[in-house]
Amino acid sequence: MPATASGTRTVTADSLRTVVAAMFRKAGMPEADATFMGQCLVDADLRGVHSHGTRYVVTYIRNLQRGQWNPTPNIKVVREKGGTAVVDADKAAGHLAAHRAMQIAIEKAKEHGTGTVTVRNSNHCGALAYYTQMAADAGCIGFASTTAGRLMAPWGGVDKIIALNPLSWAAPTDRAWSVNLDMATSVVAGSKLGMAIEKGEKIPLGWALDADGKPTDDPAAAQKGTLLPIGGPKGYGMSVVLDILSGVLSGATFGLRLGGPGGGHFLQATDVEAFQPLDQFRKSMGELIDQIKNSRLAPGSTGIFLPGEIEHNNKTQRRESGIPMTAGVMDELENVAQELGVSERLRDV
Amino acid sequence: MPATASGTRTVTADSLRTVVAAMFRKAGMPEADATFMGQCLVDADLRGVHSHGTRYVVTYIRNLQRGQWNPTPNIKVVREKGGTAVVDADKAAGHLAAHRAMQIAIEKAKEHGTGTVTVRNSNHCGALAYYTQMAADAGCIGFASTTAGRLMAPWGGVDKIIALNPLSWAAPTDRAWSVNLDMATSVVAGSKLGMAIEKGEKIPLGWALDADGKPTDDPAAAQKGTLLPIGGPKGYGMSVVLDILSGVLSGATFGLRLGGPGGGHFLQATDVEAFQPLDQFRKSMGELIDQIKNSRLAPGSTGIFLPGEIEHNNKTQRRESGIPMTAGVMDELENVAQELGVSERLRDV
Repeated sequence: MPATASGTRTVTADSLRTVVAAMFRKAGMPEADATFMGQCLVDADLRGVHSHGTRYVVTYIRNLQRGQWNPTPNIKVVREKGGTAVVDADKAAGHLAAHRAMQIAIEKAKEHGTGTVTVRNSNHCGALAYYTQMAADAGCIGFASTTAGRLMAPWGGVDKIIALNPLSWAAPTDRAWSVNLDMATSVVAGSKLGMAIEKGEKIPLGWALDADGKPTDDPAAAQKGTLLPIGGPKGYGMSVVLDILSGVLSGATFGLRLGGPGGGHFLQATDVEAFQPLDQFRKSMGELIDQIKNSRLAPGSTGIFLPGEIEHNNKTQRRESGIPMTAGVMDELENVAQELGVSERLRDV
Repeated sequence: MPATASGTRTVTADSLRTVVAAMFRKAGMPEADATFMGQCLVDADLRGVHSHGTRYVVTYIRNLQRGQWNPTPNIKVVREKGGTAVVDADKAAGHLAAHRAMQIAIEKAKEHGTGTVTVRNSNHCGALAYYTQMAADAGCIGFASTTAGRLMAPWGGVDKIIALNPLSWAAPTDRAWSVNLDMATSVVAGSKLGMAIEKGEKIPLGWALDADGKPTDDPAAAQKGTLLPIGGPKGYGMSVVLDILSGVLSGATFGLRLGGPGGGHFLQATDVEAFQPLDQFRKSMGELIDQIKNSRLAPGSTGIFLPGEIEHNNKTQRRESGIPMTAGVMDELENVAQELGVSERLRDV
């Protein structure tokens, strides 16, 4: 196979999407859900957010095979009010549950101006940007958060009990791309440690502490220790709040209860048209974007970008020229696809 | 006057509240609004958040005297849907407008489950924690953000066009205090530079860059340069999003348009009871808080605190023993009170 010297393989988005969808079908998911999983996970890779893309597929397949994830869940609203809903995911892939919940939030926003939906009994849902982008595409401001793995300590403590809960906001603009911020409350996402280990790289000081609470540049030592929050106590506080939104308010697991199935999400859509005409909003967004991008560059800067802009540029380019993926991740994906009896194949560029 | 050697004066909360309210009355505000201003600003000082407390009173009075702020505004809803409203503040003190907007958001949350209210044509509104606390006290999750001064550069740029937009989230608990996070998207609030200058102190490296984009520990040089965002591009992205919520969506000023009157706020309340019984939520919050506070302490740590807990402890203590304030700030306050013909006096402890 055309694995390059640097250990990357560049595959077409279409073939990756097709293989992933086929794998989820073979693992018991209905056609439409499997297709969505391929679409959603490859979207992250297209955007360059490999930490939340198809590198998780094999893990997800194993979760389905072990019965930890439900391939045929009954995702349903269990509590509802005009602008709110609580969704029980029935141990679905979190992607399917978050997608459904954001659909409901958008419907509620269109009717009441704003909609807030929590999800319980769910699982890992990948990149939040996917769901907030749904809101932006519908002319709404989208907000999302989710419970995540406990990889940080409370500010002033050493135990791994604070989750890397991420958040995402998205808003429509007058460009081909939306403003879309998707970030963990840690300096880096936990998966960056695994990726550094895969690549045999050290990590910068300031990302993590080792098990004794000392700064480390060794990703393996960092995995045994804790990741550091952005802004010290600020990122710690944000993580606690997002645990409250996604875990406590949803009635999902939270804090130390996390780890197995039962994760929670928080999805919110607010309709721009409830506040002003969407065209006027887009025009103002264009003005704000121009102001920001017209700043003089700092010495050594490669440019000024809005949140989500680089990801959009990646996507545009990779649709044409393929997605550079870690060769080992793609090789394993093909092995497991073969094990599942998938006939579709990855196409290298 | 009993100014201590370190240049602080400890005054009673009651007398500070009374003098401040009297000053706003003399500057033309109706009785109830003036009383609210005293209550709201002294609350920040009680909580130890002096950067947003009564040190602003003289500036506010001057804004009212210059006609930049409207002492008798007609704060009204100009656009409304089931779960949303747009409030025009009529150049009010932002505190009055944000207070009214959060009242509306809470009413909407009680009716529809969730309420989102923007404010335009407003001014500086002090500490956001005050408004999110209103939501928590009403059994809601509160969220707030506001446009603020342009003191940061875009990531990769050098121009001062990114605002220090803060955000606050609050949630009810089973304790005497609520979880209440109130933070700027910069490493520190802009007012910390002024406070360092007042005290003749240097600032830590990592807070700010000078006008040439170089790190500085001189607060005066930092005031000419830019403050740094938390988490680098993450804090920059958050600031942009909060400008969109508070400035663009509200139809207020945003980005480079900021600076004069016309600021905006974004207030949101989500009713816990729409998701689960409030008692059950409080119990889960207690469990989460216990988990976090029971972490083993890091070496040198003075304890683990939830967001808002230290501020609550300050408030409890200062209600009894008075509020330690910068002597110069209190002396100036008294001078201006005298100038306004205020007969009430500060009481030192």
